[in-house]
Amino acid sequence: MGKNFIIGIDLGGTNTKIGLLDKCLNIKDRVVFSTKEFKTKNLLIEALCLNITCLLDKHGIKKSSVLGIGIGLPGPIDSARGIAHYFPNIPGWREVPLSGIIRRKTGISTLIDNDVNLIALAEFKKGAGIGAVNMLCLTLGTGVGAGIILGGRLYRGSSFSAGEVGHVPVNEFGPKCGCGSNGCLESYIGNQHILNLAQKSLKIKNLEELTVLARKGNKEALSIWHRVGRFLGIALSGVVNLLNPDLIVIGGGVSGAGSFIFGATRKVIKARAMSPAKTIAKIARAKLGDDAGIIGAALLLSENKC
Amino acid sequence: MGKNFIIGIDLGGTNTKIGLLDKCLNIKDRVVFSTKEFKTKNLLIEALCLNITCLLDKHGIKKSSVLGIGIGLPGPIDSARGIAHYFPNIPGWREVPLSGIIRRKTGISTLIDNDVNLIALAEFKKGAGIGAVNMLCLTLGTGVGAGIILGGRLYRGSSFSAGEVGHVPVNEFGPKCGCGSNGCLESYIGNQHILNLAQKSLKIKNLEELTVLARKGNKEALSIWHRVGRFLGIALSGVVNLLNPDLIVIGGGVSGAGSFIFGATRKVIKARAMSPAKTIAKIARAKLGDDAGIIGAALLLSENKC
Repeated sequence: MGKNFIIGIDLGGTNTKIGLLDKCLNIKDRVVFSTKEFKTKNLLIEALCLNITCLLDKHGIKKSSVLGIGIGLPGPIDSARGIAHYFPNIPGWREVPLSGIIRRKTGISTLIDNDVNLIALAEFKKGAGIGAVNMLCLTLGTGVGAGIILGGRLYRGSSFSAGEVGHVPVNEFGPKCGCGSNGCLESYIGNQHILNLAQKSLKIKNLEELTVLARKGNKEALSIWHRVGRFLGIALSGVVNLLNPDLIVIGGGVSGAGSFIFGATRKVIKARAMSPAKTIAKIARAKLGDDAGIIGAALLLSENKC
Repeated sequence: MGKNFIIGIDLGGTNTKIGLLDKCLNIKDRVVFSTKEFKTKNLLIEALCLNITCLLDKHGIKKSSVLGIGIGLPGPIDSARGIAHYFPNIPGWREVPLSGIIRRKTGISTLIDNDVNLIALAEFKKGAGIGAVNMLCLTLGTGVGAGIILGGRLYRGSSFSAGEVGHVPVNEFGPKCGCGSNGCLESYIGNQHILNLAQKSLKIKNLEELTVLARKGNKEALSIWHRVGRFLGIALSGVVNLLNPDLIVIGGGVSGAGSFIFGATRKVIKARAMSPAKTIAKIARAKLGDDAGIIGAALLLSENKC
């Protein structure tokens, strides 16, 4: 019997999504649960395994028909050895050999990687990045990170921590950043920083409201999103000059305001980056939305040759 | 008869060096001439071919014993198709299919690449970068550039222009840079900028004199070199966070003042870059000096398996 199914898991600080996919990366079904319901590492691992088993049982799929389990995790991961170093937003995880643990508990071969890397892989193989060769996929949120595809392959760096584009400097003496440095991109365009700035002049509760105001033509709201685009453009000018990518894909919650952001980003890159690098580097919005994590995790197992 | 020799050429805006190397990349002999003596593209190409022939004749080496000719060039190069796009400092070159021209004129197979890329390749295979996996090799001079080795291979980018680390932003509103942007690394630490700054307070003619003063303990000279190190550290913090390399090699004229520069660079990276990336990224001085260009050019032909 062929191995026709893949389990793709996106384990986040808030929610954990478990997807059942076919070999062509079509999502057949999914389960979502609150990560925080499970207070310890061991309980969370048990919840993963139980949900995997239930999902397979529900569809009458035998474990022997599953190609493997892929898991995207919110922290630095030694993907070669299957070890999760730590998660900044989930306590209690330290050097956990998660691949081996899940493999032993489920009897299904398991691969793990960083979640942002897997989103980049998903956009590259199935989303906005199809056909790209050298690509960055940024995720704008509380944090600002990127997965890097070079020569058509995920680039992870020497200690699996490449892609921290949120911590590229924009100004030597900029605002204090969560990482301990100053003037990093994230210190200007991380969600909380945008919200803090917006709340000084606008009565809004969250960034969705800021986007709504911008859509209505509110000048202050538009100016705040343009500012985000401008800072993004300054940092990406440096990235374009350094890496000469052919594509930069931008996703994450804030990218919903993309139409107000990306114009300024493109303008700044055109003004500040060098030729010919700035000519070839296209900016595109991510296409896969919330499913990117699950699809990317499944892509650890399948080359998506459908 | 075996192909036991390689010709490695480093064609610069000022001097052109032609080296005769054995298969193990040992330099057997070299010829240097002033590039500017030859006023046109065609005269310079004739000079290259003539000097290659003379060098082989001098050593009684037949063309059939030469594995190939490698040439490093001062501009963006389509190394796959053997085309030199243009040279910022040598007029008259525009989309020149140089590999084919030299091959036809000499009867020896020829490969070309950007000079900074080849210096990086040389340091990686034969110099300070032996054993590295993901490495940048910076050249500090009038311009500030880098060759990038990722996963043990030269990374050239989507239009052969990756590595412009001199044009990574340090400040949004910094000094005007030659590239048209503001506050690029090069606008702080390019040779001319260092010299301009130094000449405001010190009576020196060139940067060698600034290094001599620093060696004598002159506080102003030391402070200028520390400033160079600090700006280098700010830009490299971003590079470390983005690319997570295990090694950054620094060469070029200014690196002669390395002992006054690198301490500040390491300190800034330690203060500003993130863990674990900053822990694994070592800073080392280039080892091959003026020969790096010739050796790197020869490495286009040989894998250096000696």
